[in-house]
Amino acid sequence: MAVNLKKPDNKDLLPIAGIILGTSVANLKNEDTRDLLIISLPEGATVAGVFTTNQFCAAPVIVARKNLKLSNKIRALIINTGSANAGMGDVGLNDSLAICEFLASKLNIKKDEVLPFSTGEIMKPLPVEKIKKAIPSAIKDFQEDNWLLSAESIMTTDTIPKAASRKIKIQGQVITITGISKGSGMIHPNMATMLAFIGMDINITPSMQDKLIEEATQESFNCISVDGDTSTNDSFILISTNKAKNKLITEDSDDYKVLKAGVLEVAKELAQAIIKDGEGASKFITIKVFGALTYEEAKEIAMSVACSSLVKTAFFASDANLGRVLSAIGSCKVNNIDIKNIDISLNGILFAEGGSKAQDYNEDKIQTEMKKSEILLTISLKRGSEKAVVWTSDLSHEYVRINSEYRT
Amino acid sequence: MAVNLKKPDNKDLLPIAGIILGTSVANLKNEDTRDLLIISLPEGATVAGVFTTNQFCAAPVIVARKNLKLSNKIRALIINTGSANAGMGDVGLNDSLAICEFLASKLNIKKDEVLPFSTGEIMKPLPVEKIKKAIPSAIKDFQEDNWLLSAESIMTTDTIPKAASRKIKIQGQVITITGISKGSGMIHPNMATMLAFIGMDINITPSMQDKLIEEATQESFNCISVDGDTSTNDSFILISTNKAKNKLITEDSDDYKVLKAGVLEVAKELAQAIIKDGEGASKFITIKVFGALTYEEAKEIAMSVACSSLVKTAFFASDANLGRVLSAIGSCKVNNIDIKNIDISLNGILFAEGGSKAQDYNEDKIQTEMKKSEILLTISLKRGSEKAVVWTSDLSHEYVRINSEYRT
Repeated sequence: MAVNLKKPDNKDLLPIAGIILGTSVANLKNEDTRDLLIISLPEGATVAGVFTTNQFCAAPVIVARKNLKLSNKIRALIINTGSANAGMGDVGLNDSLAICEFLASKLNIKKDEVLPFSTGEIMKPLPVEKIKKAIPSAIKDFQEDNWLLSAESIMTTDTIPKAASRKIKIQGQVITITGISKGSGMIHPNMATMLAFIGMDINITPSMQDKLIEEATQESFNCISVDGDTSTNDSFILISTNKAKNKLITEDSDDYKVLKAGVLEVAKELAQAIIKDGEGASKFITIKVFGALTYEEAKEIAMSVACSSLVKTAFFASDANLGRVLSAIGSCKVNNIDIKNIDISLNGILFAEGGSKAQDYNEDKIQTEMKKSEILLTISLKRGSEKAVVWTSDLSHEYVRINSEYRT
Repeated sequence: MAVNLKKPDNKDLLPIAGIILGTSVANLKNEDTRDLLIISLPEGATVAGVFTTNQFCAAPVIVARKNLKLSNKIRALIINTGSANAGMGDVGLNDSLAICEFLASKLNIKKDEVLPFSTGEIMKPLPVEKIKKAIPSAIKDFQEDNWLLSAESIMTTDTIPKAASRKIKIQGQVITITGISKGSGMIHPNMATMLAFIGMDINITPSMQDKLIEEATQESFNCISVDGDTSTNDSFILISTNKAKNKLITEDSDDYKVLKAGVLEVAKELAQAIIKDGEGASKFITIKVFGALTYEEAKEIAMSVACSSLVKTAFFASDANLGRVLSAIGSCKVNNIDIKNIDISLNGILFAEGGSKAQDYNEDKIQTEMKKSEILLTISLKRGSEKAVVWTSDLSHEYVRINSEYRT
């Protein structure tokens, strides 16, 4: 049911020299499905991470945060599906640590050099033995040219693997950026049941890499919502091998800006793919808010519309019940909105003007646009110069079906 | 599809001497359905009101707020369905004022002594002429013993009329409290597409009446959520005829406490009826949070669970995917929750202990309880002595159907 989303072609996913990926079948979900991924990083690689703000965060998130803090010498990532290893207390923590230790022994690295990630059901024990058993065959599978199968191996309710790649030029050097993501439910910023891993070869300082991941997250993974639920396991990891021949990026230079634009393109594509493959999604909805006093204000308003169940069901039905958009704006947490200044259009057609029904409102025209699978809602506040964009899906029968039958 | 909710019997709805109610068919929605209500108040009645916090509030809300502020000599209320008269700018404002003026002329009162209320589609013009035409027959219908038909006349997607009544004794005097409400979607505190009108005969000062409505709202209408959407039109009105023979209530006395308990019983019953008749509801879910540092903290956590689409679909499916409850708690806005202290039970059966899966977790027992139509989720924070209770419904296929076909 994905909206205008195609399975990527492996030949379009550019390898990053030194980053090798291997998958295997651990029987964590269904039989004969790749459900375990290991990513091995070369010496000298640096890693930055952004994690869920959910206070009930999963054991692997606790371990990954700690190991990233300990040093920046991360050499391997391991990602399992089937169990989120969340809400499992000390047992869960020990399970995650056991996986790191086992993998480290197989790769001859230190256990603190492994970052673990889990996705799946909450409050379900991590199947440690099954994972251990499947690790050797994933290691045997290591290759640079393995991004597509890697994307497939981390899918849960996803229907299409998500991967994206870009080449940019910095100081005449070709820089490669390639990433994968997963997630299609429990998607809400800060962040989502979402995992994303982006690799690149740029030569960059760890502090600039931290800045880059924070900035890229704000405009990509933190701008999407499927159902307003923030998960226990969200993680976005940005890896750099530092092997490219560019002069080390140490500050917010023009080179940094070019790099950021490239990373943002990949991150946005991966984030939007999550929405397009959103649980039960039949529409891809972009909400742009212009003319705000601050970015935060613009985003709060956009998110208030994106998270309204009533707006989302109206889009699912292609029903021009657009007063619900006004109501969602009015119920956001921004105080003193200048209601009388707000204009709203749908795919370029103005339907609300000065906070009320547009003078030349044309139901037929709006109805035609409502039926399209891609919707652009533009909200102009006319009180400042800041803007924000978020992406969401509609709320369909299929969403309810998927989420009521998730475990059965 | 309402959950354990029966149509009230008119003989159980006690009249309040001096408050007369009349309905008529104005053809605002379907033909031959009562869709207009007028409530006439005796001289000396006082009125308190609580209104939506939605900044895109409807024209009738603006007018009602203004008239209540002007004086406390309200003599009539008029409620129409079919159009919310929201998002209609100055046209909507003039339409509401025209209705007030017209009704005032028919009742020989001042136009500022009328409070208007509207519920229905947003951004749809108020059918002023139809309403004017139907006013005389509603006036002819005036009678004290008319609460049930009044509840029916303000229904929108409601399937069952909502009304409740109580008798209490204060200083040996019998005090009567009777009310009606409507609403089953766009239900979220502060407040909901919800209208509620409660009448009583207690002799009370306007300032104590204001205090009473604020306190009663906090523990009733502000404790319910169907879909997290706060509407443009919500209003809760508390009327007193002041005709009872009790000594005037002027302060937070024992008499006030007895009165508050009585009003709260009626308000809670009306609020819970809205949830039991929630759009597509197949379950009535009570969420109690204990052991919080503050009431606000307890309520924020309860609401975070009540508003989680994933929790609500799990309840719809009777699927014991209860890790979603942990995740919803963890994503709330309360900082520094002591995760390791949290216990959670379902209909009295402990399933999470110290923030993780309970030691003697029994899936069969939990599964049996999940199938019941009434669910009590108890969350113990063990860090203070404050508590809060909220009520919500599950998220079903039917919710999506109702809201995607609302206008068609």
